Amino acid sequence: MRHFLTLKDFSKEEILEIIALAKDIKQETKKREYKPYLKNKVLGMIFEKSSTRTRVSFEVGIYQLGGTALFLSTDDIQLGRGEPLRDTARVLSRMVDIVMIRTYEQERLEEFAKYSSIPLISGLSDKYHPMQLLADYMTICEYGYDDNLSVAYVGDGNNMAHSWLMLAAKIGFELRIATPKGYETDKKVLSDALEFAKISGAKIVVSHNPAEAVKDAKVVTTDTWVSMGQESEKVKRQNDFRGFMVDKNMMDYAKKDAMFLHCLPAYRGFEVSDEVFEEHSKEIFDEAENRLHAQKAVMVWLDKHR
Amino acid sequence: MRHFLTLKDFSKEEILEIIALAKDIKQETKKREYKPYLKNKVLGMIFEKSSTRTRVSFEVGIYQLGGTALFLSTDDIQLGRGEPLRDTARVLSRMVDIVMIRTYEQERLEEFAKYSSIPLISGLSDKYHPMQLLADYMTICEYGYDDNLSVAYVGDGNNMAHSWLMLAAKIGFELRIATPKGYETDKKVLSDALEFAKISGAKIVVSHNPAEAVKDAKVVTTDTWVSMGQESEKVKRQNDFRGFMVDKNMMDYAKKDAMFLHCLPAYRGFEVSDEVFEEHSKEIFDEAENRLHAQKAVMVWLDKHR
Amino acid sequence: MRHFLTLKDFSKEEILEIIALAKDIKQETKKREYKPYLKNKVLGMIFEKSSTRTRVSFEVGIYQLGGTALFLSTDDIQLGRGEPLRDTARVLSRMVDIVMIRTYEQERLEEFAKYSSIPLISGLSDKYHPMQLLADYMTICEYGYDDNLSVAYVGDGNNMAHSWLMLAAKIGFELRIATPKGYETDKKVLSDALEFAKISGAKIVVSHNPAEAVKDAKVVTTDTWVSMGQESEKVKRQNDFRGFMVDKNMMDYAKKDAMFLHCLPAYRGFEVSDEVFEEHSKEIFDEAENRLHAQKAVMVWLDKHR
Repeated sequence: MRHFLTLKDFSKEEILEIIALAKDIKQETKKREYKPYLKNKVLGMIFEKSSTRTRVSFEVGIYQLGGTALFLSTDDIQLGRGEPLRDTARVLSRMVDIVMIRTYEQERLEEFAKYSSIPLISGLSDKYHPMQLLADYMTICEYGYDDNLSVAYVGDGNNMAHSWLMLAAKIGFELRIATPKGYETDKKVLSDALEFAKISGAKIVVSHNPAEAVKDAKVVTTDTWVSMGQESEKVKRQNDFRGFMVDKNMMDYAKKDAMFLHCLPAYRGFEVSDEVFEEHSKEIFDEAENRLHAQKAVMVWLDKHR
Repeated sequence: MRHFLTLKDFSKEEILEIIALAKDIKQETKKREYKPYLKNKVLGMIFEKSSTRTRVSFEVGIYQLGGTALFLSTDDIQLGRGEPLRDTARVLSRMVDIVMIRTYEQERLEEFAKYSSIPLISGLSDKYHPMQLLADYMTICEYGYDDNLSVAYVGDGNNMAHSWLMLAAKIGFELRIATPKGYETDKKVLSDALEFAKISGAKIVVSHNPAEAVKDAKVVTTDTWVSMGQESEKVKRQNDFRGFMVDKNMMDYAKKDAMFLHCLPAYRGFEVSDEVFEEHSKEIFDEAENRLHAQKAVMVWLDKHR
Repeated sequence: MRHFLTLKDFSKEEILEIIALAKDIKQETKKREYKPYLKNKVLGMIFEKSSTRTRVSFEVGIYQLGGTALFLSTDDIQLGRGEPLRDTARVLSRMVDIVMIRTYEQERLEEFAKYSSIPLISGLSDKYHPMQLLADYMTICEYGYDDNLSVAYVGDGNNMAHSWLMLAAKIGFELRIATPKGYETDKKVLSDALEFAKISGAKIVVSHNPAEAVKDAKVVTTDTWVSMGQESEKVKRQNDFRGFMVDKNMMDYAKKDAMFLHCLPAYRGFEVSDEVFEEHSKEIFDEAENRLHAQKAVMVWLDKHR
């Protein structure tokens, strides 16, 4: 049985296989052909952090596959009362078929997985956001930008940056990350990525220079400067990230016709200007939609490898 | 594509067409014939205000039509974190098939509709409650009270009063509204209604005199004096509405066998006496049930006019 | 029409009939045969108290029977705003097919049932937890422990203890309950149980002596010392329950190969030691899973007796 907790656990071939499946399922969905890949299966979704996109895309996704979803916020369930995760894992393993958890700590995912007899999917943690990256790479492929791909990530060295590192390292493309000082990516994640890069041929560069990172990139991307749980640092962060907004000016460094991706929610006037956002809204909302299809593909894939 | 945000946007013919459809669907439901009008379709429901009836009736409704519903409270989704409505509208348009929003501000519905590529339904706003009025008129028709109809609305000049104005103005029946001083209906809504009334022949009278309003009415109706969000004004409002309770005494002014309708929740001893409520409970709970069927009809109708 | 509010209302034959049905449905589920016993039916679930197991097992259960569930927390619905239960009962009766309520007060269940025209299921109250007991007895039967059954309940004289009393009294087995002083079972529940015991031949003993209660028991069980809503008494209770932890030492008084059951959530180091819990985890999680199947059986049974 496999879990989907980080791209680190997946080979290039597996990632490409899932993305191919996602594209197929997307085509079927567009034709309103809903094949019951997961007929009568139940997805349990535990949210320790709230979310529009994750919630809606998983719930619609499993439904379109012939199953159904349970939405469990920590207010609704006993987890909030301090039941050990290993008991929740064992109970849910008896009642549902797949579990998705959106949590603060990657360690909680690993603990849950240890006691789970059903596949577990990360819907985001403090460390990684692997589902988003599948959707992003799927979008890049759809636009035909995957050949000689170079991606610039400008902003916080957070879970999105980590997942870009893992994706680039596994697939083998060029990734330039520019963060402010003090907001670098995790050292262990970076060194893991550099190890994988040796095999895949990925070119990974981290710096504090956005202009350099963006130079000639085919894809530019960023993420909010203030993630959930960081609201108290908001003013400090907005100061520290000065100069890291992706605006028209910064996009001019990139290749002509470069894509701009954003995992949403977007804070205009901070990590991205309204102008850049709206100019690239087609690809951003394609990217959002691809969450739906990529997640369906992951669920089907995990169910096959059960 | 059409949205369902207010009856103002609908012609008499369209309203009657939806009500006829609602009656048909109700008959099918009573026979437990569930035709898959909206097979595999997903209704996204956003609640900025909580609700039993709206929640349950939409969720059961779409299910009985062969689809499913997503319940999104603002606690669960990013809206609460200040994502612009236009982004939420664009994301949901990619993932679900219809959206229902229960919100405080009619303007939010209009903003959402502007960016939505899927039909949007109002589940209530500060200004209108059009779904309730369809259920009310459907109930009136079922009881055969729609000929020479005269309705008395006694109470707050709120969203319910506004929707009664629009319904009467479009259908062309007699409506007498009595509110306390200071609680009149919105001037713009009233003048719009009076404009439509010229075409339909509706007779609309607003006053501060409940007895006059109720005199010889075939249908008497009211609404809570203290809507959600007005709790701080409770004592003041209860004073200001003295004399506006629909009790046995007031019902005596109406036609013998007059109906009494209430959109619920009802606060006995305030806008209605327990005696009147319980005596008319059959029609009140028929009215509540008709929310279910009227909403199914609206969803099917919007899907056809997509 | 029948409701499922307490085992007191059910005969031995009926309880055994439901458990036989639960076993059949479990077998079908294990083979992934989902018979549409409740096709297109909707279960409304009202939670005044949160819960993992109850929530998940009912929601998955009705889905596996071909229907769907509505999750209504008191935050989401009008109940919180003081709508009388009799109005909610009458509205839901018009919209859904079965209702499950998890509440603090048994009286609220009875009030709801009075006005409900659809079957009502208790998902737990301050007084009884009948669904749990069906799952427990089903598990005992699966392990072949129902012949010459003797059960020791060690701990709080709460809703679990009361439901054990009712189950033993109806089925006719031996039940020894040991509670600390001041935590005895309700006098009326006990005397009712003793009345039924005269017919069934149940041997019921209540005491303050855990070792005596556990002596030669085939099944040992307990429950949390601090139920939801009792958090302020936590320290006092933990003191008062000293000596009532089911640990290896206490299990040694029971029959060799005795089962240990726990309805979860379990607080290790309080009512049960980690060692005992983990040693008996197979039967505890079987018990948890049986909630799912027992509840499906109750829903199917009530639907048949409508």
